Amino acid sequence: MLINNKPYHTIWTKQDNNEIVQIIDQRKLPFEVSIVDLISIDDVFYAIKDMLVRGAPLIGVAASYGMYLGVLKEKSELSDSKIIEFAKFLKSARPTAVNLEYAVDLVVKNIIKLKTKEAKIDVAFKLAKQLKEKEILASKRIGENGVKIIEELFIKKNKKTINILTHCNAGWLACIDYGTATAPIYKAKEIGIDIHVWVDETRPRNQGARLTAWELEQNNIPYTIISDNTGGLLMQKDMVDVVVVGSDRTTISGDVANKIGTYLKALAAYDNNVPFYVALPTSTIDKNISDGKEIPIEERNSDEVKYIEGLYKNKITKVLITPPKSRALNFGFDVTPAKYVTALITDKGICKANKSDITKTLAKDD
Amino acid sequence: MLINNKPYHTIWTKQDNNEIVQIIDQRKLPFEVSIVDLISIDDVFYAIKDMLVRGAPLIGVAASYGMYLGVLKEKSELSDSKIIEFAKFLKSARPTAVNLEYAVDLVVKNIIKLKTKEAKIDVAFKLAKQLKEKEILASKRIGENGVKIIEELFIKKNKKTINILTHCNAGWLACIDYGTATAPIYKAKEIGIDIHVWVDETRPRNQGARLTAWELEQNNIPYTIISDNTGGLLMQKDMVDVVVVGSDRTTISGDVANKIGTYLKALAAYDNNVPFYVALPTSTIDKNISDGKEIPIEERNSDEVKYIEGLYKNKITKVLITPPKSRALNFGFDVTPAKYVTALITDKGICKANKSDITKTLAKDD
Repeated sequence: MLINNKPYHTIWTKQDNNEIVQIIDQRKLPFEVSIVDLISIDDVFYAIKDMLVRGAPLIGVAASYGMYLGVLKEKSELSDSKIIEFAKFLKSARPTAVNLEYAVDLVVKNIIKLKTKEAKIDVAFKLAKQLKEKEILASKRIGENGVKIIEELFIKKNKKTINILTHCNAGWLACIDYGTATAPIYKAKEIGIDIHVWVDETRPRNQGARLTAWELEQNNIPYTIISDNTGGLLMQKDMVDVVVVGSDRTTISGDVANKIGTYLKALAAYDNNVPFYVALPTSTIDKNISDGKEIPIEERNSDEVKYIEGLYKNKITKVLITPPKSRALNFGFDVTPAKYVTALITDKGICKANKSDITKTLAKDD
Repeated sequence: MLINNKPYHTIWTKQDNNEIVQIIDQRKLPFEVSIVDLISIDDVFYAIKDMLVRGAPLIGVAASYGMYLGVLKEKSELSDSKIIEFAKFLKSARPTAVNLEYAVDLVVKNIIKLKTKEAKIDVAFKLAKQLKEKEILASKRIGENGVKIIEELFIKKNKKTINILTHCNAGWLACIDYGTATAPIYKAKEIGIDIHVWVDETRPRNQGARLTAWELEQNNIPYTIISDNTGGLLMQKDMVDVVVVGSDRTTISGDVANKIGTYLKALAAYDNNVPFYVALPTSTIDKNISDGKEIPIEERNSDEVKYIEGLYKNKITKVLITPPKSRALNFGFDVTPAKYVTALITDKGICKANKSDITKTLAKDD
């Protein structure tokens, strides 16, 4: 998607040097577009843990590049146990997104059997590139599938502006291109549907106010930022036509772990008969978990609640927003039970949030 | 209640000079305790509008002092139309709390018939003082009535810590003393019940993180600040025993207008079988409105969403937290339908959120 009218992906290797992976430091957006070089597995681990990159699909792809850099830069013998150690290390960066596990395990499985280091490097690199391409295609298909829903609403509303509420950033910045929740939005704009997006601020890290707002602005989608408290009232006032969010992990029975606060919007949508869709690549579906309560919920540093970053005199500045000695608690995700999800918008089509429909969808060819 | 171990009210007249009304500038809390002199009706209008004072009961009392200062300082003839003009002016400061209207109308009704300016000043002053005493008593009774609920939960839980979630500041800072939602909390502490409060940050003005956190800390109540997105997850995880919030206006049928985001917590409480109580002085009940949809919802400046204030290098500093050109929308309240309210905790007893119970409660003697 566009940054200052130039197309970008969220991760790539340098054109003249495959040994350098580049990303946008998303912690500095929207105030600064800063490109960062990752040259080691440690760099990738840190980029995921400290959220220079975030969003389930992007975390997965970044982790696969992390495995590649791990094997590439390893100076001592590249034993199986070393590779497994790399995988364990990367997986420990963040617990909730299933893509991280999936991507890392895929690389391990495919390189551990290879004989030479060169072959391992080569395959790890190819897998990372493939995974990246796969995520781009998944986003594109989510857009094509999801736009049908928006189009139907648009026709039903006599072609008046469709107001879409989204939470957090499930945009192209969370993926490689197009996004998940935003993919149908970008597609809708492309085919001439009038849309407007309500962007939940998404405390405590403000990914909505910082990232979603910025990427929609860069790509000419009309939007308005609201506090996370506001969505319920807007639904009561008939100011929301549809909610579309992303997912960090979806169970085989359709429970959806996503950024904390998603569940509250799902409840409000249900209470006001507003359709609530979750857009996700099938790669974020966890076949091994049925009950959402089993999904591990990341607890992050409470300073993310107590301090907030913004622009002051043109410099990114962190201010304390609570009494200095306050205790704060910072869970990163919540789980929306399947019964509140109207349907899942996946790369393999739209499906109901239940085990039989999800299983059927997963069984479809890529 | 206590500030640095010294008891305070939120509004008073100077001991040696009844012509000066004093308040705490709540915009500067928790970073600075700044006492402000109000010497004219314009000062009071500004203090309400710009939220130096806030919270329905306090707004009402402040407005009655505003009427007093208006008649006191009027240099020209004090005509009926002048008094009505004062009332209209003060009522325009903020639209949602019914106390403002009630307090101002009470003063108008009682002074307009008086002959001399001196009598008008005298009665306006007495009414303001009376209203203040009435609100203190109301808070005290809310505490006595509400603590029974907490006590029951405490016994049911084998005297394990009771976790109370609250939204915004319905503390003593929103009233004169004790608070509304906090009154049962302070009372519970007094009688030796173990309590812990989950304090919703309450975007966009952060009254939870700034005011509730600070006042609980000053009064030795254990608390933890959470983002507004977190309450749903905590209820899913069984970490909330009861929700208690305040109200800016309650309809005769039990719909509750309160700080935006309250409705979302009510939905989560309902979904998880957590009791959801609203603590309010009967003065905030609007007998003239039955349907919550008729309550006017204040829309405030969008800069309150785009900028946030905190401490940076020991100075209160405002930072921009969105792309500079972003549009933002800032509604101040939402309405929780009566069906999601377990009961109302009032100064005249606990009652169900329906017309017949509320009418009966209102009919009780003070």
